[in-house]
Amino acid sequence: MTRDDVLALDEADPLAPFRAAFDLPEGVIYLDGNSLGPPPKAALARLADVARREWGQDLIRSWNVNGWIEAPLRVGGKIARLIGAKPTEVAVADSTSVNLFKLAAGALSLRPGRTTILSETGNFPTDLYVLQGLAALLPHARLKAMASEDVAAAIDDDTAVVVLTEVHYKSARRWDMAALTAAAHAKGALILWDLSHSAGAVATDLNGCGADVAVGCGYKYLNGGPGAPAFLFVAERHQGEIKSPLSGWMGHAEPFAFVDDFRPAADIRAQITGTPPVLGLAALEAGVDLQLQADPALVEAKGLALADLFIDQVEARCAGFGVEVASERGARRGLHVALTHPEGYAIVQALMARGVIGDFRAPDVLRFGFSPLFLSHAEVWNAVEHLREVLATRAWDTDAFRARAAVT
Amino acid sequence: MTRDDVLALDEADPLAPFRAAFDLPEGVIYLDGNSLGPPPKAALARLADVARREWGQDLIRSWNVNGWIEAPLRVGGKIARLIGAKPTEVAVADSTSVNLFKLAAGALSLRPGRTTILSETGNFPTDLYVLQGLAALLPHARLKAMASEDVAAAIDDDTAVVVLTEVHYKSARRWDMAALTAAAHAKGALILWDLSHSAGAVATDLNGCGADVAVGCGYKYLNGGPGAPAFLFVAERHQGEIKSPLSGWMGHAEPFAFVDDFRPAADIRAQITGTPPVLGLAALEAGVDLQLQADPALVEAKGLALADLFIDQVEARCAGFGVEVASERGARRGLHVALTHPEGYAIVQALMARGVIGDFRAPDVLRFGFSPLFLSHAEVWNAVEHLREVLATRAWDTDAFRARAAVT
Repeated sequence: MTRDDVLALDEADPLAPFRAAFDLPEGVIYLDGNSLGPPPKAALARLADVARREWGQDLIRSWNVNGWIEAPLRVGGKIARLIGAKPTEVAVADSTSVNLFKLAAGALSLRPGRTTILSETGNFPTDLYVLQGLAALLPHARLKAMASEDVAAAIDDDTAVVVLTEVHYKSARRWDMAALTAAAHAKGALILWDLSHSAGAVATDLNGCGADVAVGCGYKYLNGGPGAPAFLFVAERHQGEIKSPLSGWMGHAEPFAFVDDFRPAADIRAQITGTPPVLGLAALEAGVDLQLQADPALVEAKGLALADLFIDQVEARCAGFGVEVASERGARRGLHVALTHPEGYAIVQALMARGVIGDFRAPDVLRFGFSPLFLSHAEVWNAVEHLREVLATRAWDTDAFRARAAVT
Repeated sequence: MTRDDVLALDEADPLAPFRAAFDLPEGVIYLDGNSLGPPPKAALARLADVARREWGQDLIRSWNVNGWIEAPLRVGGKIARLIGAKPTEVAVADSTSVNLFKLAAGALSLRPGRTTILSETGNFPTDLYVLQGLAALLPHARLKAMASEDVAAAIDDDTAVVVLTEVHYKSARRWDMAALTAAAHAKGALILWDLSHSAGAVATDLNGCGADVAVGCGYKYLNGGPGAPAFLFVAERHQGEIKSPLSGWMGHAEPFAFVDDFRPAADIRAQITGTPPVLGLAALEAGVDLQLQADPALVEAKGLALADLFIDQVEARCAGFGVEVASERGARRGLHVALTHPEGYAIVQALMARGVIGDFRAPDVLRFGFSPLFLSHAEVWNAVEHLREVLATRAWDTDAFRARAAVT
């Protein structure tokens, strides 16, 4: 692989025109769209319009005339198309953490008599923390976290729900969703998939694998904005039956009847809790609309190719500097790559000073994400060259680059 | 009272200059700031800057360089000054509904052995719904909702927490917070105050009355934007001890250590759940910053005066058309006024068609809010004249005005 080969890949890239939908800063190679996607130009325009015209001019009337009240289902219905769900199976609400709580509690309520929530050690922390909190709250629930290779065998007839993240936040290891879902169902358990590193990245097929419930994040590959509202999925067969423990007014069958007794909506609305976060929803909707213009199979294929190119080039050009590749090649991986190095934090800072933006995950992971809509193969090539130079010159070896910030 | 008297009140109004901080549409008298406050001009500018520069140019680095990670505590600390709390006692997170769940569950955990959550029938629906959901989830908890006049006497040694809304969403009746808090404490119970119709409106004094926990809304008198994130208060003496059942990663003592076991932050951070909603926080912060420029005592006094003026003029000019005033005069009321009429819905629509924007609350309440920062006494006077005309000419009596929208 030469630099000319890489430029030829960009020439032939059917997704290359999407780059023009973004306005990334000059001199930046942004390999952190898996942590915070950059704003599509349309998201900035939409947000300004929602703020100035809808909020400022139409005021309270916007709940009706500008469709604010329907936004959680409207945007959810669009996300559904990216994750193999029906439009009526997805809603946007709350954060990923809060949605995990709702659906894990709901899954427990669908499996009375079973007490175990099963997850993976080293899962994204909030998944484990939320499940720990739920287990501490409910006398009849307990969390069992197993090493990934032991999860399938640990599912038993006390397992109410298995909670897994399709693409691991560090290694990007991708679960075989169909196999794990089948394994859960074989024991009568439900499965809850966290799609935070999947939506907008890999071609997840929730209904194709028979998943029960799922959650996911709006601010990563969906480019929905910092702290964007999250989404949740409930398979049609569970709707009406699954209970949300967070029975807020927006989950009521008739929220504007203002009656004292909660009566849940029969559909996915039952999982919406409070008043929809309109500004966040507006930015997210623009991100999702852009994503829907791209073929999900092409998105996944390009992202995998970019990440594999990165791994190949790191191995070819950065050998001998103490960097190890901690992610697999190919389709058993999502769209980011983990490297490890004992000085990972300082190396990430040195790269950022050169405009190559990745992130660090304690204790030693350098993480680089390959968002297919705005990255080119040439940028990946150039990023590796920056990394090689930083390592070869020990440019990271300064107090300034070692000084830890609040968010690492 | 004559129109000239009203104009003289505006001339003498020390808060009149705040009107210029808003850009309300021409021809609108906005009496619904208690449902959705309008955007301060500074909120629109701030939102645009956060989106274009912070999100678009600084990207992921904004969590550190633009203080995103501190925004829940920074904005919470500012809201604290409006509600009689210490800056370290308030955080912004989630929705009012979700915060109610967290703090009601937390209060139960502080009173082991006690099983009763006590509230008021006719409280804002989401308060009752969330408490019903919590009671259904926990085998050791039950909700008792009493008529307001019976609440104090119903507090007993099984009461873990009393949950009340300072200003009622329909009648605007204002609880004596000091008296009810003392009544709860006298029986060893905790009290949770919902300040949704208080913050930015009346001069609530949480610590002055010894309150334990509280929640409130960002999109009403704080003018924080549609579906703005909500706030929560935990008195310093309970921090470290009170548990959040929603133990998301942002409530961890070291969220970026990425360890498997949840260890709650020792301070108010423990009540933050997921990733902060940055866009919503930005608009809210601008609204709060504006509010902090006004003397809370003047804000409350002007709002009460506007509402009393409205009641006086409705009684003087709208008698005989079937409208009843359902709110008290004076300081035992918040800053909105409820009228009742069997055709309330259609009357509200007819007023909106004239640019006088209030709202309707089932079954028969016409609700008008008197936000002190942008309303004048003359607007109140003119609104009553519109109401008189709509009633006298039966302008409301059309199919179009009777046709119900999704949000009423």
